[in-house]
Amino acid sequence: MKIVVDAMGTDTHPAPDVEGAVLAARERSTSVILVGAEQHIRSELAKHRTTGLPIDIVNAEDAITMEDKPAVVGKSKPNSSMHIGMQLVRDGQADAFVTMGNTGAVQAVAMLFTLKRIKGVKRPALSAIFRIKDRPIIFLDIGANADSRQEWLEQFAIMGSVYAQNALGLEHPVVGLLSNGEEEGKGTNVIREANELIAQRSMINFFGNVEPKEILDGQVDVVVSDGFTGNILAKTFEASTRYLARMIRDEIQSNPISMVGGVLIRPAMKRVRRKIDTFEVGGAPLLGVNGVVIIGHGSSNSFAVKNAIHQATMAVDGRIVDVIGEKLADLPASSPVTNSVNE
Amino acid sequence: MKIVVDAMGTDTHPAPDVEGAVLAARERSTSVILVGAEQHIRSELAKHRTTGLPIDIVNAEDAITMEDKPAVVGKSKPNSSMHIGMQLVRDGQADAFVTMGNTGAVQAVAMLFTLKRIKGVKRPALSAIFRIKDRPIIFLDIGANADSRQEWLEQFAIMGSVYAQNALGLEHPVVGLLSNGEEEGKGTNVIREANELIAQRSMINFFGNVEPKEILDGQVDVVVSDGFTGNILAKTFEASTRYLARMIRDEIQSNPISMVGGVLIRPAMKRVRRKIDTFEVGGAPLLGVNGVVIIGHGSSNSFAVKNAIHQATMAVDGRIVDVIGEKLADLPASSPVTNSVNE
Repeated sequence: MKIVVDAMGTDTHPAPDVEGAVLAARERSTSVILVGAEQHIRSELAKHRTTGLPIDIVNAEDAITMEDKPAVVGKSKPNSSMHIGMQLVRDGQADAFVTMGNTGAVQAVAMLFTLKRIKGVKRPALSAIFRIKDRPIIFLDIGANADSRQEWLEQFAIMGSVYAQNALGLEHPVVGLLSNGEEEGKGTNVIREANELIAQRSMINFFGNVEPKEILDGQVDVVVSDGFTGNILAKTFEASTRYLARMIRDEIQSNPISMVGGVLIRPAMKRVRRKIDTFEVGGAPLLGVNGVVIIGHGSSNSFAVKNAIHQATMAVDGRIVDVIGEKLADLPASSPVTNSVNE
Repeated sequence: MKIVVDAMGTDTHPAPDVEGAVLAARERSTSVILVGAEQHIRSELAKHRTTGLPIDIVNAEDAITMEDKPAVVGKSKPNSSMHIGMQLVRDGQADAFVTMGNTGAVQAVAMLFTLKRIKGVKRPALSAIFRIKDRPIIFLDIGANADSRQEWLEQFAIMGSVYAQNALGLEHPVVGLLSNGEEEGKGTNVIREANELIAQRSMINFFGNVEPKEILDGQVDVVVSDGFTGNILAKTFEASTRYLARMIRDEIQSNPISMVGGVLIRPAMKRVRRKIDTFEVGGAPLLGVNGVVIIGHGSSNSFAVKNAIHQATMAVDGRIVDVIGEKLADLPASSPVTNSVNE
């Protein structure tokens, strides 16, 4: 197995990207191909002990930045590390592509210029993997499709379920549909119709609608959402925990006695921060494209890059692209849903 | 000014509802009418010093519970405390209605059976008022309309702005539109078109799109959202802060040294809890109905009921129903928005 790692992905590339690849090669003997500006990669690699490690380099002239517009960059930078990296996967020279770069650009380059969709997939979904109560949960879509249709959500449920089972190792993953109430009739028209569609699929272990509280209680393994709400939920979770953490710090520092207490709880708070930190999971798949693509945060450090590479190896071992294709091909037609418009 | 208080609203009614009314009458000399099961109200009132306080009672035979279905209850319980309370407002015998009861039922009874809409209002919106950095911010819609149209969102921006200015006392309230990115083109089709509509209104001090982080940074005074996403955001905020607080407590309790620290920071954590607690605001308006209606949580204590009553007096003083009607009547037609569908 060979994993292509975008050396130009993180905000401070190529240092964390290259070091993450070195760590993966060293700790798990993962074969990696670093793609990007060759000279920079070489000088970065020179800072590490790499003798005997399975690391290759493929040069790419262009690099896509966080400021690049996804709609433009697919055409304007045909020799970017993303293009070349995903071409290696498309052409069978590598098994997966890992990047911490511009998420919109990864999608555009994957969908329109390199890997394209798995046959039968209507829309790919961007996912995130959170660790709740020491178990991974996969959440999709978190932003690829602001306006989602019910049939797309049904496919997200299938793809998320396949990923949870085959890459995350959960035996009968429980799938929840994000809504504003648990009752079946709750939600937008699209959500209510998606609920009916998903409920018909015996291959999905469907919990029904879920609310944020149940997600954080660890009641489901897969959360299906439209890309707009999913993106806002993920951002709200991050913003709220930061907001509360800041408030706690300010209140503790407002008084000398609680400041002493603050020192005593510092290790506990560090453990909390580590748990909250999305670095723990590192990267999550862009599901539905015809190849394994793992995307992480631009702010990732080398540890997060290493984890994203590990995520890629699990996805390849789980044959997720093939399994998604098979499941969608075998899918019987669904009964039409009652078109319940709420006015 | 007379405020009708639903004595049958809270989960443990009528105790907190009646005590809240007593506190409002005592501390701010607010005239209140308690509506509900008269015998229960009288025996509850007997527990407090009420001599000379401006408290009246109006009997209502029925009470709406949290389990009652909003679609049914409007017709099946015509003598509920909600019906009778809002009829008093409609008929000019009182100025506002305050309830901690079933939110869906309040809306149904208000919209279909008693107050109805302000002329020109397309859809009423349910709001919540949060206190961020010691300033109130009003957030709407948080659940009345799961599927919202751009013209409704435009009206929510106007109603929220009027409320912030006239009831919350903010001079030039800044209005943000919840989206999954700050850039103008971000969001669902409905959000993008609402952005264009709101931007055309010179009466609105429009910030543009806002993300959760900016809301929690206190960058806007009014947050406009579709009811589905708004509801999920509010629930995510609550669930995330609880999740983090529980995690912090567990980590602190896992070690004897941090437990000592935990004792020392207890007063600081209490202050944090008080700030987070939505009790601080107590109640928020159902905007767009032809009368002041303030709704609070079923779990409210008497302090929260008192605050909701205070919220009602501010809304009455601010003439919000009249001002909303005037603003909508004066509204010039908006230019058609570019119908930008993203596929």
